[in-house]
Amino acid sequence: MMNKKPKIVILGAGYGGMMTASRLQKANAYQDAEITLVNKHNYHYQTTWLHEPAAGTLHHDRTRMLIDSVIDTNKINFVKDAVSEIKTDEKKVILENGELEYDYLVVGLGSEPETFGIPGVNEHAFSIRSVNSVRLIREHIEYMFANYNKEEEKHDDYLHFVVAGAGFTGIEFVGELSERVPELCAEYDIAREKVKIYSVEAAPTALPGFDEDLVTYAMNLLEDRGVEFLINTPIEEVTAEGVKLKGGEEIKSRTVVWTTGVRGSSILDKSGFETMRGRIKVEKDLRAPGHDDIFVIGDCALIINEEINRPYPPTAQIAIQQALTCAKNLKALLAGSEKLQEFKPDIKGTVASLGGKEAIGLVGSKKLFGTTASAMKKVIDNKYLYQLGGMPLVLKKGKFNVF
Amino acid sequence: MMNKKPKIVILGAGYGGMMTASRLQKANAYQDAEITLVNKHNYHYQTTWLHEPAAGTLHHDRTRMLIDSVIDTNKINFVKDAVSEIKTDEKKVILENGELEYDYLVVGLGSEPETFGIPGVNEHAFSIRSVNSVRLIREHIEYMFANYNKEEEKHDDYLHFVVAGAGFTGIEFVGELSERVPELCAEYDIAREKVKIYSVEAAPTALPGFDEDLVTYAMNLLEDRGVEFLINTPIEEVTAEGVKLKGGEEIKSRTVVWTTGVRGSSILDKSGFETMRGRIKVEKDLRAPGHDDIFVIGDCALIINEEINRPYPPTAQIAIQQALTCAKNLKALLAGSEKLQEFKPDIKGTVASLGGKEAIGLVGSKKLFGTTASAMKKVIDNKYLYQLGGMPLVLKKGKFNVF
Repeated sequence: MMNKKPKIVILGAGYGGMMTASRLQKANAYQDAEITLVNKHNYHYQTTWLHEPAAGTLHHDRTRMLIDSVIDTNKINFVKDAVSEIKTDEKKVILENGELEYDYLVVGLGSEPETFGIPGVNEHAFSIRSVNSVRLIREHIEYMFANYNKEEEKHDDYLHFVVAGAGFTGIEFVGELSERVPELCAEYDIAREKVKIYSVEAAPTALPGFDEDLVTYAMNLLEDRGVEFLINTPIEEVTAEGVKLKGGEEIKSRTVVWTTGVRGSSILDKSGFETMRGRIKVEKDLRAPGHDDIFVIGDCALIINEEINRPYPPTAQIAIQQALTCAKNLKALLAGSEKLQEFKPDIKGTVASLGGKEAIGLVGSKKLFGTTASAMKKVIDNKYLYQLGGMPLVLKKGKFNVF
Repeated sequence: MMNKKPKIVILGAGYGGMMTASRLQKANAYQDAEITLVNKHNYHYQTTWLHEPAAGTLHHDRTRMLIDSVIDTNKINFVKDAVSEIKTDEKKVILENGELEYDYLVVGLGSEPETFGIPGVNEHAFSIRSVNSVRLIREHIEYMFANYNKEEEKHDDYLHFVVAGAGFTGIEFVGELSERVPELCAEYDIAREKVKIYSVEAAPTALPGFDEDLVTYAMNLLEDRGVEFLINTPIEEVTAEGVKLKGGEEIKSRTVVWTTGVRGSSILDKSGFETMRGRIKVEKDLRAPGHDDIFVIGDCALIINEEINRPYPPTAQIAIQQALTCAKNLKALLAGSEKLQEFKPDIKGTVASLGGKEAIGLVGSKKLFGTTASAMKKVIDNKYLYQLGGMPLVLKKGKFNVF
């Protein structure tokens, strides 16, 4: 028994899981533990970049990397499989094609789109959540353009694009799409004015919670590119023909992209954890309440911003920071210590890209606009790659301004 | 009356119509006649290249050129409109948005897919006939690949491609598609063996009429690339789910490309001409029987190969040669001569591309294989561009071997 190494199982290779694995590898934790990373795909992708391949402005391969190009699978086992359930009482994870025992578990299972129970979303709307889903959006958009001129009777709804939700992802996608549309019009011989992009938001403003000057800058810029905002306009239903708005109006569209926010993982509910919309309110050391052997990070972890007594929105930034704490705490446990570090998010800022060389951002209390913000966005993206895989990964997958 | 110039109207800017217009321009015929070219689009495209953009191996813009980049519209009027009917008794052409009077008419209205009355072809099959139609095929194929991994339940029929007809176009398209599939598999994370390409032919051989050695070479090569041939296998019906073969077997597929040959233009039938499957059996000087003011060229013209007493298959090569004769005869008529030249096709050879650097061909009695044939194909393509627009057009739109 003495020489049997404890088993650490990390579920999910998103920002949180991937960075945890990478840190444990760097800290040589594999000498003291048998570490296994489980993920549905054999690649890791950058969720925060997905609005770009969805619009077709960046190739999806730029947003992903093979897991074994970052993780040394001689040191950390990699299992390509999907998680079905966590059996906490048996300390076991049920996979679609097998099962794994653990001594310590890291849950980084990410998020699922939040539909708010609105009918038709799952059946008729696209979502920006994975390489597979955004590749389909890109192809679907191109297919609509290709069909338009082919058919004798013109279907204007082929060229109407509804983006539900004007939050971070919705605005970033609308930004990319508005940049792409002129290219698509040239490619498929279609007049620009035939194409409509609708940004539909239930809240009284686009980018709720963001600084007002930045919101105004973003909306003006996107309106100049032909985006039509429908603010304060809840969607009541998504159908095969488009969306029905509150008040009875309808937008005919074959392409509805759903970006109204995310919930945590339904696997957690299924496994008997107490969650709030799929998220576990974690202890200060990132462990699940009542489960000293389970860390929860990323979109599955709920932590409260005590200044305003509301949850922090789940972001890549927080997931990455949680992974650093989680890896340290696992190291401590392996060393026999029970003194775990408390997680404190350090929000450095937020930058939203608007397509092309445009962006808006808030770094500390400083507002950034246009190319300055856009450059900052690239710095943030590259910093993550640096943390994960050092300079080689930055050079391979990073974003650079081409002068 | 004396100083009123006669009106020449050319219908269609395919190989025949475009070359007729170009020759009349070069011969300064616009000094003696008011010449008008009518076409549905403002561009001319190379029908014989369309299998490439259909498979996505060449951009469709490489196959087309703006008409006014080749024709000087100060010398020849260009009308962008679709032809509805020819009223021979009134010497008038009815367009969708107007009408045109003529003294001499050149009919170069091209072809339509021949369905042989097989049910479901028009509703469910794609055809390789225009920039719009092939752009849609390319996008449809990519859309099928993009959908495959997105859906939880795998639909193998998304990755089954049925090409109906193993004639010239069918084989050329299968060749390009078999070259493209490995790229698509890499792009969409799909194992090559999941993808099936079926070449289905009712006749007892692929490429009927072609030299047997060349057919064997082509079939072996394409089979090596994973193409499955179903020869001697008539299709009885095309449905939304695939094709039903004679004998009851069914191939499940979402993508059926119909290449079983062409007929002439239904506009001719509608206008009261006597046709054989939309083609007018023209006099030796290319005029329609009983219509001394109407020349018919290209796919609409039926001419008999007297050596074998069968019609010449309609090809770009013959259409181009007919255009040269037609332009000369129009010049003669404008000069008051009634001595018109007889058309004699000069079949220099036939080359079928097989994708990549592969092709087969017969030039005179010489059989060509592989890269030799492929190089010859490019020479033929470039020769047409040279005839049409001189060296500048060859350099702009030509095909070159890149060493």
